Amino acid sequence: MDIVMIGSGNVAAVLGRKFTAAGHKIVQIISRNASAASELAYEWDTESANYMSLTNPNADVYILAIADNALEEVVRDLKLPGKVVAHTAGSVSKEILKDVTRHYGVFYPLQSLRKEISGLPDIPIFFEGSDDIATNTLQKLAQSIAYEKATPAGTEDRLKLHVAAVIVNNFTNHLYVLAEKYCQAEGIDFRQLLPLIEETAQRLKTSSPSDTMTGPAIRNDQETIQKHLQLLQGHPAIRKIYQVFTESILQTK
Amino acid sequence: MDIVMIGSGNVAAVLGRKFTAAGHKIVQIISRNASAASELAYEWDTESANYMSLTNPNADVYILAIADNALEEVVRDLKLPGKVVAHTAGSVSKEILKDVTRHYGVFYPLQSLRKEISGLPDIPIFFEGSDDIATNTLQKLAQSIAYEKATPAGTEDRLKLHVAAVIVNNFTNHLYVLAEKYCQAEGIDFRQLLPLIEETAQRLKTSSPSDTMTGPAIRNDQETIQKHLQLLQGHPAIRKIYQVFTESILQTK
Repeated sequence: MDIVMIGSGNVAAVLGRKFTAAGHKIVQIISRNASAASELAYEWDTESANYMSLTNPNADVYILAIADNALEEVVRDLKLPGKVVAHTAGSVSKEILKDVTRHYGVFYPLQSLRKEISGLPDIPIFFEGSDDIATNTLQKLAQSIAYEKATPAGTEDRLKLHVAAVIVNNFTNHLYVLAEKYCQAEGIDFRQLLPLIEETAQRLKTSSPSDTMTGPAIRNDQETIQKHLQLLQGHPAIRKIYQVFTESILQTK
Repeated sequence: MDIVMIGSGNVAAVLGRKFTAAGHKIVQIISRNASAASELAYEWDTESANYMSLTNPNADVYILAIADNALEEVVRDLKLPGKVVAHTAGSVSKEILKDVTRHYGVFYPLQSLRKEISGLPDIPIFFEGSDDIATNTLQKLAQSIAYEKATPAGTEDRLKLHVAAVIVNNFTNHLYVLAEKYCQAEGIDFRQLLPLIEETAQRLKTSSPSDTMTGPAIRNDQETIQKHLQLLQGHPAIRKIYQVFTESILQTK
């Protein structure tokens, strides 16, 4: 398909690379950030523009990969009648696009995307269209980059997926932040924990996390727990998390 | 080196495989669990025994890979004068072995080990010896399977590493458990989150977690946070964790 990419941030860059790798053609990239846009235009051998009014009207799909709070303003004067137009914001309704075209929808990548990365991660796509034309086009596009991880999903399901994503991505990463701070303060090397972190994530491919839970909390090993709380005396923020988790793990058993 | 492995659980099995892969020879495996021991003996083409009194006295190193709380009893009648003997329990002092031999120590693998896995994970080893003979032997053994991830560490450092490991392994896995329960209850597919979970862990290889924090909490995006807390009304355990993390992330900024 011929695609116009609107936006030049992390989502636009990584989705654009996925599209290109799948054989699609980015025919134009539009962004107010002229330097980011021209970098991506160079990478994709395409043209860039920095006004929505210059949007090329001849593409099959228009992807709005811009921040949630910028969508309303950008969409206000956009008219692409007869075209398929989708935004990538998981927690925004598709209806924000209803005055742009009859064929509108959402194309939500459930992944943490950063343009600096070298390889391209697996990206599950959740899509939704206003009518058959939008739905079919977005489904085809989703399947071309996500294979069996292309799934129809309405606003409610996307919101739920976002909550779950916050738990496994943001909260997990916060645990890594706390562990790194603790290691730095105590003079031990956080990087020695990376194999353990990787193994913990990899294991999910073959086992449910409920079946592989180990550690002092699930054993209710109070001797070790008290020893750990003692060690964390000088780290109140981590100590608080330690207590909350120990209690939560015991109650989840 | 010729190694006697005492224990037949997860740590014994995976360490034994690492030793074998590095060219060492397991000359005997000893365990009260006769069937587990004979399975590993078959895998390693060696002999098994189920009494400590039958311990082969001709090995270079004796590894006690048994549960923390079984160590004391197993060690009580063990005499291996002149031999190098080490246990694998990170939070137990090496002194528990002082009546077994003059050359004793600790050989602590910082990894979550399960015998069913197919591949062998990276395993950082933290070692400590009672004298030069023990230290040198354990260092050589550690380097042969962990390369630059072989590090000397006393009891205090091992305890701190264990606390950090509980945070990044047990607590992270608990977040996965909570997310899986939420997905099951809400009819969404937890497996769609696996690429995100993998990316979150992989990213640590190139970036500090503090530099890659995203999500509503770090942006203090109260609109999204309130929407999420609303969605979590029926999940009090997860809601509690959501609130504690949102607060902790804001305070860590």
